Amino acid sequence: MTLPTFDPGFTTARMTDVFSAPRRIATMLGVERALAAAQAAAGLVPEEAAAAIARACESFGDDAEALLVAGWEAGTAVVPLLDGLRAVLGPEDSRWLHFGATTQDIVDTALVLQARDGLDAIAPDLERAASRCWTLATFHRATAAQGRTFLQSALPTTFGHRVAGWWVAVDRAAKRLAAVRATLPLQLGGPVGHLAAIGAAAVPVRAEMARLLGLTAPAVAWHTDRQPVRDVVSALAEAASAAAKIALDVALLAQPEIAEVKVRGGGSSSMPHKANPVDAMRALAAAEACGGVAGIVTRGAPQALERGLGAWHAEAFAVPLVFQTAAAAAEAIERCLEGLEPDPARMAAHVRGTPPADLEAIALEVDRVLGTRR
Amino acid sequence: MTLPTFDPGFTTARMTDVFSAPRRIATMLGVERALAAAQAAAGLVPEEAAAAIARACESFGDDAEALLVAGWEAGTAVVPLLDGLRAVLGPEDSRWLHFGATTQDIVDTALVLQARDGLDAIAPDLERAASRCWTLATFHRATAAQGRTFLQSALPTTFGHRVAGWWVAVDRAAKRLAAVRATLPLQLGGPVGHLAAIGAAAVPVRAEMARLLGLTAPAVAWHTDRQPVRDVVSALAEAASAAAKIALDVALLAQPEIAEVKVRGGGSSSMPHKANPVDAMRALAAAEACGGVAGIVTRGAPQALERGLGAWHAEAFAVPLVFQTAAAAAEAIERCLEGLEPDPARMAAHVRGTPPADLEAIALEVDRVLGTRR
Amino acid sequence: MTLPTFDPGFTTARMTDVFSAPRRIATMLGVERALAAAQAAAGLVPEEAAAAIARACESFGDDAEALLVAGWEAGTAVVPLLDGLRAVLGPEDSRWLHFGATTQDIVDTALVLQARDGLDAIAPDLERAASRCWTLATFHRATAAQGRTFLQSALPTTFGHRVAGWWVAVDRAAKRLAAVRATLPLQLGGPVGHLAAIGAAAVPVRAEMARLLGLTAPAVAWHTDRQPVRDVVSALAEAASAAAKIALDVALLAQPEIAEVKVRGGGSSSMPHKANPVDAMRALAAAEACGGVAGIVTRGAPQALERGLGAWHAEAFAVPLVFQTAAAAAEAIERCLEGLEPDPARMAAHVRGTPPADLEAIALEVDRVLGTRR
Amino acid sequence: MTLPTFDPGFTTARMTDVFSAPRRIATMLGVERALAAAQAAAGLVPEEAAAAIARACESFGDDAEALLVAGWEAGTAVVPLLDGLRAVLGPEDSRWLHFGATTQDIVDTALVLQARDGLDAIAPDLERAASRCWTLATFHRATAAQGRTFLQSALPTTFGHRVAGWWVAVDRAAKRLAAVRATLPLQLGGPVGHLAAIGAAAVPVRAEMARLLGLTAPAVAWHTDRQPVRDVVSALAEAASAAAKIALDVALLAQPEIAEVKVRGGGSSSMPHKANPVDAMRALAAAEACGGVAGIVTRGAPQALERGLGAWHAEAFAVPLVFQTAAAAAEAIERCLEGLEPDPARMAAHVRGTPPADLEAIALEVDRVLGTRR
Repeated sequence: MTLPTFDPGFTTARMTDVFSAPRRIATMLGVERALAAAQAAAGLVPEEAAAAIARACESFGDDAEALLVAGWEAGTAVVPLLDGLRAVLGPEDSRWLHFGATTQDIVDTALVLQARDGLDAIAPDLERAASRCWTLATFHRATAAQGRTFLQSALPTTFGHRVAGWWVAVDRAAKRLAAVRATLPLQLGGPVGHLAAIGAAAVPVRAEMARLLGLTAPAVAWHTDRQPVRDVVSALAEAASAAAKIALDVALLAQPEIAEVKVRGGGSSSMPHKANPVDAMRALAAAEACGGVAGIVTRGAPQALERGLGAWHAEAFAVPLVFQTAAAAAEAIERCLEGLEPDPARMAAHVRGTPPADLEAIALEVDRVLGTRR
Repeated sequence: MTLPTFDPGFTTARMTDVFSAPRRIATMLGVERALAAAQAAAGLVPEEAAAAIARACESFGDDAEALLVAGWEAGTAVVPLLDGLRAVLGPEDSRWLHFGATTQDIVDTALVLQARDGLDAIAPDLERAASRCWTLATFHRATAAQGRTFLQSALPTTFGHRVAGWWVAVDRAAKRLAAVRATLPLQLGGPVGHLAAIGAAAVPVRAEMARLLGLTAPAVAWHTDRQPVRDVVSALAEAASAAAKIALDVALLAQPEIAEVKVRGGGSSSMPHKANPVDAMRALAAAEACGGVAGIVTRGAPQALERGLGAWHAEAFAVPLVFQTAAAAAEAIERCLEGLEPDPARMAAHVRGTPPADLEAIALEVDRVLGTRR
Repeated sequence: MTLPTFDPGFTTARMTDVFSAPRRIATMLGVERALAAAQAAAGLVPEEAAAAIARACESFGDDAEALLVAGWEAGTAVVPLLDGLRAVLGPEDSRWLHFGATTQDIVDTALVLQARDGLDAIAPDLERAASRCWTLATFHRATAAQGRTFLQSALPTTFGHRVAGWWVAVDRAAKRLAAVRATLPLQLGGPVGHLAAIGAAAVPVRAEMARLLGLTAPAVAWHTDRQPVRDVVSALAEAASAAAKIALDVALLAQPEIAEVKVRGGGSSSMPHKANPVDAMRALAAAEACGGVAGIVTRGAPQALERGLGAWHAEAFAVPLVFQTAAAAAEAIERCLEGLEPDPARMAAHVRGTPPADLEAIALEVDRVLGTRR
Repeated sequence: MTLPTFDPGFTTARMTDVFSAPRRIATMLGVERALAAAQAAAGLVPEEAAAAIARACESFGDDAEALLVAGWEAGTAVVPLLDGLRAVLGPEDSRWLHFGATTQDIVDTALVLQARDGLDAIAPDLERAASRCWTLATFHRATAAQGRTFLQSALPTTFGHRVAGWWVAVDRAAKRLAAVRATLPLQLGGPVGHLAAIGAAAVPVRAEMARLLGLTAPAVAWHTDRQPVRDVVSALAEAASAAAKIALDVALLAQPEIAEVKVRGGGSSSMPHKANPVDAMRALAAAEACGGVAGIVTRGAPQALERGLGAWHAEAFAVPLVFQTAAAAAEAIERCLEGLEPDPARMAAHVRGTPPADLEAIALEVDRVLGTRR
């Protein structure tokens, strides 16, 4: 059995890598290793056992895809993963593997670590998009353009003011993702969340494991309280929305009767004269997809008692897809902006409305929005 | 034409009042008045005109329901509202009414003010629910109970640890709503968002208007950038989710074969012996409804250029419903918790699993979660 | 406590009436009455008791709003409704009231009956909209217009061909709603669905009750199998989607730089020169709202064992809102089409693309689509 | 760049194959070939050209994954696909390749053909599940069990009656999918939908192409009228819902304090004594995922004028995922039912309620539901 695939238009190469099967298994191994190391530091686990576990994790050679397939038979890939590690470790060291932990601790912490890598993978595109908006807005701060409300001509504005609005949303989305990244929590609660098997050492173990993995140590296990996951997903959906807004505006402005911007055009199989706004199209499609899969998480059913049945597992489907579709939207809008050619003469020709706009007053507002003037 | 109604089970009396037609119109009048006052303070509008506008707003007697009906004919209730005010003001003062503003400035700022009142209306129920969870968790910190994962017996826990998890989610939701409340922004951008008609006075006018209304002054108009609305809605959805989680757990624990808690029972039309968990049911139903209407906002289509067509207007439907369903969920869970009677003997009878739990270690974790111990 | 209200732009006057509190209670009374009559016809209930029940239902004078409020206390409005009826009936006749039935039988059958009235209330607007599309498509079957794909000029088409596509969707939606109307099932399963209390008479009682109410008799109770409800809701969402498609096309064609159609314009509070496409806007907003509330039903959580907890109750919120928002979309698009003025000269001016279109060939395709030619 | 993957728990091996990259490209080639053949039959295209096109399609050797990646650069995989074919065909035959068609004709028809294969891939699991329900319901038609409403004991029922309800939903879902399969339409409208380039031959070409591909010939192109896609998706979501309902009931009945059924248990990494209901869990997770991706299609934005921007493309993401998640839900529930062991003694022990149930009357109702008695 091979893993199922989906259309590359809804991800990026970097994000495909982050959520690949090998990365997922490798990340889980890293969590088991950090757990043992943190417990060794707290004196719960012999140093030698932790070292043996680290070596076993490092040299683990089982096929990642096969593990994922076997995992669904067993209900979780952690079971065959532990079987594989125990086959290498002796029975004594095996006792200390996964000590006090539960499957969900490993799965959730690995997901959070992949989320961190995913946030790193999407950040550059968002930053480039924000930077491009900033440059465009600055350059066109006083470029007269027709303001349009309800798709009707309203009063004049400047193209820079419109683009400054794009910048605000992309910049805020990038900052929000960075803020989410800074507070990603590990998961460590043991079978029913109270970590009592570890006893008083729970606090230092969580702290040390968080230090090793570069995560925060939560006050309590969040096995059935999925707010950290919803926070990541909502922030990604915001980023996709910011891209979709730009894409919609660009597509509207690129209509031939308006033609206030030119875009990199995609080919048509039947109409060689056409230049389809393919980057805007991709951004809109990816954002639409992102909103749908994000809803699986944000509208997730409440999760019963100490571990949810189904709704938790649905995250294993939805979260990687949210990352990939958001990344696709960000990359597409970055390319769209890179290839965007505004046409000030066309913009000027469309300006109408009373009273005539005071372009410099608008430009000063643009400066304030961009933070270059108070 | 009377206004359409919906089932009272999906709101609370306080929230019905916040989103009533009279409150909506009164809030819009307050925005027009604050706008004039802020502009008078900035020297843009004569003091006498601002005073006349304030008086007209205060004595405005048009029928709120009729205005809303007329509003949909005109595309917005602001048009008939202004007509009504101008009929009272002379032509000179009328010039200064709604000066430099656009319909969306009034509608959005009024929505934000109603949102603030709505946040105040839901807060007490959430606080009472959090407080009840805290008390229950403290009291039952060491009360042995069976931990259940995937609806199967797992390892022992304490009832207090389970309830501490409820508290975490409700308390966090309440704090998040308070944080959202503290940063609610006004809307003031004028017809296409740049407020150039007001010129250099835009900054002080926004600041003064924000002061008068108790809102924050945003750096830029958010006519088509709906993040403030999504933030409110997402925070309310989190509160409803927290209620739904408790409701689900309670309903599961109240199953007669488990019977670890008793709940206030609702009647059955056909089975007098039954005690339906009506408060849990109401909380679940309201949370489900909340998630659905919240999705209208959070998955909202991108809004075109300087004003969205349709997606913006859909908020007028969705946002009040999000508040009301979230409030219903909060009130229901508060009542559910108030009437909840845990049965420690039943809980003890169901405890199984190896190794036996160290109840005091769990209780110490509960203390840490509740913040009474580090 | 008054019932909560919502904005009249998201319903129609007729649909407000269908889902009003008095209609809801009156419909429930009609179900109880039909149940008794059907049981009397089957010899299960004395004729006199059925007659007394009919009289009690007819003269029932309790306040509908108060009953709904009381209902949420009790978990269902049926409990206070039956209390009210029993207060009028003597103890002997009371025995035969609601005989063998459960609350959900009454609530679901009443919902289905209101759905039937709701389908009747939306049908005329859809039919008028379809008729207007048909007329427009016929008249403009050979009116040259620019075909636009991805918002770019593609090849020439005719305005009639575009409108014929609108007609197909509206006409199909209307027919689908009619098909759904023809198969609406009653609900009668008794407390746990098997209706065993009625015994062998279950089949004739269901048949007679269906006859009396003008519904179909299902083979089995659908207490937790909500397909009939999802069918109604999906069909309404299709109707709203058909309206939204027309609204989007109209708004795009009404852009001033394109201006191939003129629409009835809504006023602007700040820009007297503007003519906002308010009907298209309303249709889009209502369709967006409709999609959101429909999702509460179509994505409804699975409903446990013999009666769902929460997900069923959420329908009491969602279904009336789906009807009302769909009706609003239908009415808005009907008005939009009524006021639509195509401008063939503008259309001709925008035609470009190679090869030139064979207008008559397109017109023949229009004829085939409309069914006036094979 | 490799194609992105997702977790195998959300698909089946057969469905992975149906929506693999090679199948997608092969299906598109089949559509181009059928188009040429149908046009040759109508005398529009020389027989030799059609034959050359058929050979080129058959021997087409380009890498499917690379084509999909290239496709997103160009806006569609059809552009590089045609480039590849034209490199093999001479310039004369190339003229007749893709004659009169547009990209969307190929993409949509290929999607419909994959949908047909997908429907064939899911059908056996649904049929086996339905058959297993039928057998269980028949066998346990009079097996006393406690009816439970709102998770509370209500009145007695039989296990067979409960399972008969499962059967009704699965059987109906299977039949609905079969009905959808029987009416799947091809897409053939040419660049803007009217197919005028083919002229009067449009009708016979569509008919012959439909015959060759085993599809129906629609009266009109459905480029922006996505009802056929929504129909497939809604029917699959119904199947997933039917699976989720069974899964929820099974998980509730398998709770250890109830224990009325035993299930094949999945392992736990930390609690060897546990038997997690993994099949129910998988079914619930897959159904939840299915509902989310289905919403991308069913709540799809209206698609502008002659071709949608973004919302259409989002289907390329959503539709394959809807199929795969629905298939996963069906397979999981089939395995769940296969391993299900009811415990009549436990069921009997839990029966309570007044009046005592007439088991034979319930069994007769079961017979009627299953259609073995009228």
